[in-house]
Amino acid sequence: MESVKQILKGDRLALARLLTKVENEEPSGFEALSALYPHTGGAHRIGITGAPGTGKSSLVNRLALHLRSSGWSEQAKAKSLKIAIVAVDPSSPFTGGAFLGDRIRMRDIFGDPGIFIRSMATRGALGGLARATADMVDVLDAAGFEAIFIETVGAGQAEVDVARMAHTVVVVGAPGLGDDVQAIKAGILEIADILVVNKADLPGAENTLRSLRLVLELASPPDRQPPSEIEETKGEEAAAANWSPPVLPTVATSGDGVAERIQSIHDHYQHLQQSGGLAARERARVRSEMEGLLRESLMEGFLEQQSEGSFESAVESVLNKKKAPRQAVRELVEGKQK
Amino acid sequence: MESVKQILKGDRLALARLLTKVENEEPSGFEALSALYPHTGGAHRIGITGAPGTGKSSLVNRLALHLRSSGWSEQAKAKSLKIAIVAVDPSSPFTGGAFLGDRIRMRDIFGDPGIFIRSMATRGALGGLARATADMVDVLDAAGFEAIFIETVGAGQAEVDVARMAHTVVVVGAPGLGDDVQAIKAGILEIADILVVNKADLPGAENTLRSLRLVLELASPPDRQPPSEIEETKGEEAAAANWSPPVLPTVATSGDGVAERIQSIHDHYQHLQQSGGLAARERARVRSEMEGLLRESLMEGFLEQQSEGSFESAVESVLNKKKAPRQAVRELVEGKQK
Repeated sequence: MESVKQILKGDRLALARLLTKVENEEPSGFEALSALYPHTGGAHRIGITGAPGTGKSSLVNRLALHLRSSGWSEQAKAKSLKIAIVAVDPSSPFTGGAFLGDRIRMRDIFGDPGIFIRSMATRGALGGLARATADMVDVLDAAGFEAIFIETVGAGQAEVDVARMAHTVVVVGAPGLGDDVQAIKAGILEIADILVVNKADLPGAENTLRSLRLVLELASPPDRQPPSEIEETKGEEAAAANWSPPVLPTVATSGDGVAERIQSIHDHYQHLQQSGGLAARERARVRSEMEGLLRESLMEGFLEQQSEGSFESAVESVLNKKKAPRQAVRELVEGKQK
Repeated sequence: MESVKQILKGDRLALARLLTKVENEEPSGFEALSALYPHTGGAHRIGITGAPGTGKSSLVNRLALHLRSSGWSEQAKAKSLKIAIVAVDPSSPFTGGAFLGDRIRMRDIFGDPGIFIRSMATRGALGGLARATADMVDVLDAAGFEAIFIETVGAGQAEVDVARMAHTVVVVGAPGLGDDVQAIKAGILEIADILVVNKADLPGAENTLRSLRLVLELASPPDRQPPSEIEETKGEEAAAANWSPPVLPTVATSGDGVAERIQSIHDHYQHLQQSGGLAARERARVRSEMEGLLRESLMEGFLEQQSEGSFESAVESVLNKKKAPRQAVRELVEGKQK
């Protein structure tokens, strides 16, 4: 395919076009992705999540700019990295509205051909957004981007999806949000490989850092394996568990701590490579993605085979209290196999 | 079935046993639920959600106690309502841990045979929790509970699930959480039928109330229909859309505003009944639940039919970069039909 060759050569227009096709679930987009897939595997996928108001987007900008200008470490400075940012806003499941005004702040890095930015907002189901994001990250990986930031608003399931997609998960907090310890309730610490307290120049930052560290010490060792109904081995993941998530300050507006956080992200990746945890995360990610795709595919196939209105009739029978939902669904599935 | 008769007679022990069976997905539990299902439909299902730290649980206690002692309105005072509280904590998808210490505060209402409380924590997938909750609420509805509070921690998908399950959704906020306007980003306002600012005796409460009201005025009319891949009519729901969610203060610790919020909840239910919105919500809820069940059922059926390890082989082929995930899944599904 022509577009595949162009993308492998670094053609940004061809890349942008393919991303749109993949986002819109066009079959030709999926064909190109299949052709590109063997070229994936070179990117460090970095998830960045956190509550609104923590300055996540500014921090991602700073991290990307620093990585672009200085590389992963002093030794690597000679080589200029290609960096992509995928900003996902799953926050509005009902109206499908996008709140990506934050992107305006990205203007510092527009115009740099080594940084590619793409925003996505919810269209329809949450699962659909996660699948589209996974596909787009695969395309960017194949296109030679060596660091891919996947940024999302911290909101329950979205964080989990990011954790599944990324090699390194950075959770961003800030002082004064009143939810530093409460955040534990939302399970956010359990997905963090690195915790960043941004806006660390604000009053209360020391308290936030201290209480997060205390809570992490008290917490049981994390188990990052996503729940799966298909059995799997957990051995490799366990080997990677001896990473203690650091809790570290940054000030995205001034750039304080940004170089050090790039180093932390790199340290985590090297730890994953050396411990075998990288392979385990790749496996968990692929399994989870394929389970989601399989579910969708089976549902679509089933509905296509049904006679017109059979699902509707089943819904009616439940609304009329003739059948319980589970009973109606079982009869629908069994009826198909007659 | 013996247990069904006992539950319809009001036997609490039989009820507790069946709820456990249903939660554990035992077939005998689902049989009993099918037998009970024609008796559902009498309950007002009230979803209560909000961020941690807003005093949600205390508020639910107060609402339940007030409703128990005073009924829906002065006229109905003579009749004592049966009330159930289902507290769902979906906050910890990774470790499956429960943070239901809040329940200790429920001791005021333990011992009252007219109030039934049940706590649930995540076990495995988020979808599984929502399905178990839906089943348990159906059992409680059939058992004659006239008001069922479904309380959950506000965390993205969980709020959406509650919105789908309830007739009336109460979103609880509090001053000083620093996220009153930011919360809009998380889509929380779009699912609210009633917004409560709890802890309204704290400084900043007036500001929180004012800014939430302003934001609601600016917001576009809500569309509560959950995303569905199966087409449906939206006419009835539109008829119910002319409800403007009120933004109202409470102080759960002192009881201030509790009687008025019970009135608001009742007003919303009457509005739904009169506008036809109740039927539309019931339909949307049943559709959404049945879609979830159908997906699960198809997945289970497919995996049972597969030869041992075929899904694993497909995962391997993706990890080896021989196939893209979508391609591998398509071949898996098509292979089955040969």
